[in-house]
Amino acid sequence: MNDRADFYARIADRHLRPLWEVLDELVPPAPRPQSVAALWRYDDLRPAIMESGNIISAMEAVRRVLILENPGLPGSSLITSALYAGLQLILPGEIAPSHRHAQSALRFIVEGSGAYTAVDGERTTMAPGDFIITPSWTWHDHGNDGNGPVVWLDGLDIPIVALHDAQFAERYPEPVQPVSRAEGDCDARWASNMALFDHGHATKTSPMFSYPYARSRAALAKLAAARVCDPAHGVRMRYVNPVTGGWAMPTMGTFLQLLPAGFRGMPSRSTDGTVYCCIEGRGSVRIGEQPFEFGPRDIFVVPSWQPRSFAAATEVVLFGYSDRPVQEALGLLREQTLDESAA
Amino acid sequence: MNDRADFYARIADRHLRPLWEVLDELVPPAPRPQSVAALWRYDDLRPAIMESGNIISAMEAVRRVLILENPGLPGSSLITSALYAGLQLILPGEIAPSHRHAQSALRFIVEGSGAYTAVDGERTTMAPGDFIITPSWTWHDHGNDGNGPVVWLDGLDIPIVALHDAQFAERYPEPVQPVSRAEGDCDARWASNMALFDHGHATKTSPMFSYPYARSRAALAKLAAARVCDPAHGVRMRYVNPVTGGWAMPTMGTFLQLLPAGFRGMPSRSTDGTVYCCIEGRGSVRIGEQPFEFGPRDIFVVPSWQPRSFAAATEVVLFGYSDRPVQEALGLLREQTLDESAA
Amino acid sequence: MNDRADFYARIADRHLRPLWEVLDELVPPAPRPQSVAALWRYDDLRPAIMESGNIISAMEAVRRVLILENPGLPGSSLITSALYAGLQLILPGEIAPSHRHAQSALRFIVEGSGAYTAVDGERTTMAPGDFIITPSWTWHDHGNDGNGPVVWLDGLDIPIVALHDAQFAERYPEPVQPVSRAEGDCDARWASNMALFDHGHATKTSPMFSYPYARSRAALAKLAAARVCDPAHGVRMRYVNPVTGGWAMPTMGTFLQLLPAGFRGMPSRSTDGTVYCCIEGRGSVRIGEQPFEFGPRDIFVVPSWQPRSFAAATEVVLFGYSDRPVQEALGLLREQTLDESAA
Amino acid sequence: MNDRADFYARIADRHLRPLWEVLDELVPPAPRPQSVAALWRYDDLRPAIMESGNIISAMEAVRRVLILENPGLPGSSLITSALYAGLQLILPGEIAPSHRHAQSALRFIVEGSGAYTAVDGERTTMAPGDFIITPSWTWHDHGNDGNGPVVWLDGLDIPIVALHDAQFAERYPEPVQPVSRAEGDCDARWASNMALFDHGHATKTSPMFSYPYARSRAALAKLAAARVCDPAHGVRMRYVNPVTGGWAMPTMGTFLQLLPAGFRGMPSRSTDGTVYCCIEGRGSVRIGEQPFEFGPRDIFVVPSWQPRSFAAATEVVLFGYSDRPVQEALGLLREQTLDESAA
Repeated sequence: MNDRADFYARIADRHLRPLWEVLDELVPPAPRPQSVAALWRYDDLRPAIMESGNIISAMEAVRRVLILENPGLPGSSLITSALYAGLQLILPGEIAPSHRHAQSALRFIVEGSGAYTAVDGERTTMAPGDFIITPSWTWHDHGNDGNGPVVWLDGLDIPIVALHDAQFAERYPEPVQPVSRAEGDCDARWASNMALFDHGHATKTSPMFSYPYARSRAALAKLAAARVCDPAHGVRMRYVNPVTGGWAMPTMGTFLQLLPAGFRGMPSRSTDGTVYCCIEGRGSVRIGEQPFEFGPRDIFVVPSWQPRSFAAATEVVLFGYSDRPVQEALGLLREQTLDESAA
Repeated sequence: MNDRADFYARIADRHLRPLWEVLDELVPPAPRPQSVAALWRYDDLRPAIMESGNIISAMEAVRRVLILENPGLPGSSLITSALYAGLQLILPGEIAPSHRHAQSALRFIVEGSGAYTAVDGERTTMAPGDFIITPSWTWHDHGNDGNGPVVWLDGLDIPIVALHDAQFAERYPEPVQPVSRAEGDCDARWASNMALFDHGHATKTSPMFSYPYARSRAALAKLAAARVCDPAHGVRMRYVNPVTGGWAMPTMGTFLQLLPAGFRGMPSRSTDGTVYCCIEGRGSVRIGEQPFEFGPRDIFVVPSWQPRSFAAATEVVLFGYSDRPVQEALGLLREQTLDESAA
Repeated sequence: MNDRADFYARIADRHLRPLWEVLDELVPPAPRPQSVAALWRYDDLRPAIMESGNIISAMEAVRRVLILENPGLPGSSLITSALYAGLQLILPGEIAPSHRHAQSALRFIVEGSGAYTAVDGERTTMAPGDFIITPSWTWHDHGNDGNGPVVWLDGLDIPIVALHDAQFAERYPEPVQPVSRAEGDCDARWASNMALFDHGHATKTSPMFSYPYARSRAALAKLAAARVCDPAHGVRMRYVNPVTGGWAMPTMGTFLQLLPAGFRGMPSRSTDGTVYCCIEGRGSVRIGEQPFEFGPRDIFVVPSWQPRSFAAATEVVLFGYSDRPVQEALGLLREQTLDESAA
Repeated sequence: MNDRADFYARIADRHLRPLWEVLDELVPPAPRPQSVAALWRYDDLRPAIMESGNIISAMEAVRRVLILENPGLPGSSLITSALYAGLQLILPGEIAPSHRHAQSALRFIVEGSGAYTAVDGERTTMAPGDFIITPSWTWHDHGNDGNGPVVWLDGLDIPIVALHDAQFAERYPEPVQPVSRAEGDCDARWASNMALFDHGHATKTSPMFSYPYARSRAALAKLAAARVCDPAHGVRMRYVNPVTGGWAMPTMGTFLQLLPAGFRGMPSRSTDGTVYCCIEGRGSVRIGEQPFEFGPRDIFVVPSWQPRSFAAATEVVLFGYSDRPVQEALGLLREQTLDESAA
């Protein structure tokens, strides 16, 4: 054993370790995400999701979700190092019982109508393309009063809260929390560019917890007609917290982007690994060297700092989320639009 | 002449003055507004406004406005020490030529439809109850493409800008600025609780420059149905800058308030003298010891720190504006809801 | 009487006024300050100040101050449209009794040592060049425990608070408020780039209420030695609120500026009319077309938007204050450094 | 194989996973930190540190640091899930070559004098107790111009930056970056509660990069004399970014705390796992059920949500750092002072 190895062995007992042996690993020259680019085709997902409805009830499962686990992060239950994604199924008549947790959750409705999410006493009915927030530490439950299965994409900040060892969770004493406000109350308070004179909302998350697709889609259409178009991202709009004008959630940034038919975007990259879900249309994305085709309800993930470029055969609308608000708050975000040649 | 008077006379030449002779005037124990409570009945205003249409053209006048001058501030052209108010008339086919100024202006549409305001290249069509902003230093002109006269309430921060000696103004080289964006562009960008991903809006004023009454009124109605009601102010909602969640304008706070039929409000007072314009319904307000009845299109002013209490015979909607954003920014605002007995 | 005059007369009774007759006055093309450039030589001021000591006691006067009234604003008690300035004298053994008011006050010590200001239970001893704050609505009294007269410059935001009709004031029941914290307590809490972990300071004004000249002067000297120098303003440093990093007071911006010996500054102008007090050295300032020479303790005022250029015969240090924080908060501030030729 | 296991196996190929099998692990009821309470006695550390000086040069190592690895996180190089800590040695005449990285670093000087850190062209000389920042992405190198070894505690946000896959690093072309500003320049700009009028500092990290112990210690002493004392934490002061009044660094909160001789603190807990380094005095800390004695230069770590209570035999001063700024920014922080009985 040479001197250094001997030294390392001796200090290991005292819980000491030589930095110089791991410096490059701890402080690498550029991001080395373990997550990889991946796409889940909804045609493949749907049979598994529907089968899960036979395997376990929503009540027993608490949340009947199939986690989309990144192939580069086996065993982690994560889609990127900082984000979780899953597809949740709720069948007619079912209830996913009420609980709350420090993790923030987003729901993006993929299939079906007639289910609801209740947040702190108010229910909102789900329709495809709707974006719904469950803010940190708010009681929430889901139910399906409709006639068919309803499926949505769940996005959570599980690894972020875990990194900081700040997890808390509890079950509500009843399966369903009481309804204390009429549906649409929140919309009346926040969706008209007005606010109650002395509203007192102080948490980091938008009090507007449901952003219906019809409204968002109309805004995208009007801007597309006005030829607003980013060369890499098309018409990209982020969901906004009306109390601050900032991101709707403190840990996850959420957005829609419309790619006009025939769009061929410039490549770009950013340090916020991003999950996308296609809502409408057919297109393709090149991530690093890998091409992926996508259509409605397909889900894909772009790891940090990998160049991505979009193309649209028909008009496409994508929903996306990433850890961008955290990276901005901490001064970590980098992004670039790249030359075609550099792609 | 006694010693003091002699001393005062001698130092006056050196532009010196004894504070102790004016201390109470400069630093009074409580606000002593020179402005007084006043109400302008629209039945009285309308003939004068219409006559002004014969007296001068919009083009010659630049802005054909009758200033509402507070009876306590004769010669000042002001409605409170900090605010200006006027009623502007534009007749079919007329144009109020384009200019810009450091003063911020608000327009609240009182009568008529079919006129427009253009702000920095985008037009918005006016309808009664709409709230429209002309941000500081933006080119703006007005025109009437409709069939009848259109009248609106102008609110400006003229005395605030004057106090700071920070006025600037200039005429546009043409009467009408070019239209560079389609009507509704601004609404698409800002009215759906979404925002362009990288919008870059950085001024202190809301980029949302037109808040249609239909949308605001619907929100009021829903909250009224939910029995949201402040004991002094009914359902009071302020207009919001979607970029910050704060006031729509840096110098003037604007709001709507709905008083349910039969409402009898508690008295309250605040240091921001406020101008109100009735949109719908009939009610009354007691300001200090003075009662006023009001109906649609009537305008009244409540001076700083005077107790006011509202009552509504029918359901009432009021628009209001004051210098509250400045008082909040400077730490000057005080307000109280008073006991009935104290009224 | 022509039609228009007749119309104007008729509507005047209804408290209406034609805007078009006063538009240029209300919305001028550029600032038209009524205040004028002026300089008060301390050699002229001092005899009057000392004589005031014979005319009235501090106790009777409450505040024995000679107001510096702008020659362009006779009868106003103001030095600019937005600011008040005065020189306060306190003689050995005297007390200026305790009171508080909505107006914020600054003290800049001009002559003498051994007096104190008490703010909310803590006293600070004054020395020439010290900058001391009396935040809005804090109890404060002054006393002189030394052997000679002490004179300071008082700056207040009287016209700003008056414009908004938000004045409040009250007398403390005793002439002197009790001392509840040792001298230097505030300094220990705020002057070391540290803060108590959970300090809870929430008002708009710096909790650091005394900025000793020795410390400020040393910083200026070090930066001057490092050849930091603005072409118009020399080494200009503003006093900072440690809680926010912003201005020390919400209504008045305060600063020191050092002009190296031989400095000849470029002309500049800004919309914040500014009061200067020379602390050290001899120099000159050209304001518009008017030249002024100044030496220690002389005070001068530069109205809004008038070009000013500084020159320094010896090394000069100036203290200054203006309404800049308000203009910044409201989006009104404009400033320019001008070409030599444009001066 | 039962149905569920079969289903799980079949979907695993499609990178799907049943949430209900891991729900409690992903969303636990309370923090389950893997890190454990631990203390490194300096008497044990010092021989290893000094031996490292023989094992490798600073130049070869780039940074000659012994990492303090949490016994509960073997192989991680981390002291808590969110933080890194190490002890760095630099010998007389040595240089640790210049580089920069996205990670923010703090240095807390433990032993020796005469070394320096250079940040973006300015050097600061180190003395025991000084707190020095290397902001994200700033060039920095270290050197020792003195006569003895110098040791400091390095704190970095390595796992935070890693979680977000946002690492970047590069070597400076020369071992030592050029010195462009005199020592103390930064102090002149920021340490006197003043700031250059137009400073333009916009990053998230304090421009004040060196906080000398002499100054911090004097503030602590004055507050201790004034009997300021938190029942759990004694006199606890955080380092402040003078530009914002907030934390000195965006990812790590840093503070000093003085425990008066004889202090027996109430237990408290918080979700930000914290690293402490004793500077002066002797005391003890109980973490969960485990008691630890500490003296000068000893380092210990308190995991998230574990109750800790301090006692001081003599007057003690501790330095500490945690991920609190991130937890505050994301709305994750929880903390409690506990009853004695609950400890």
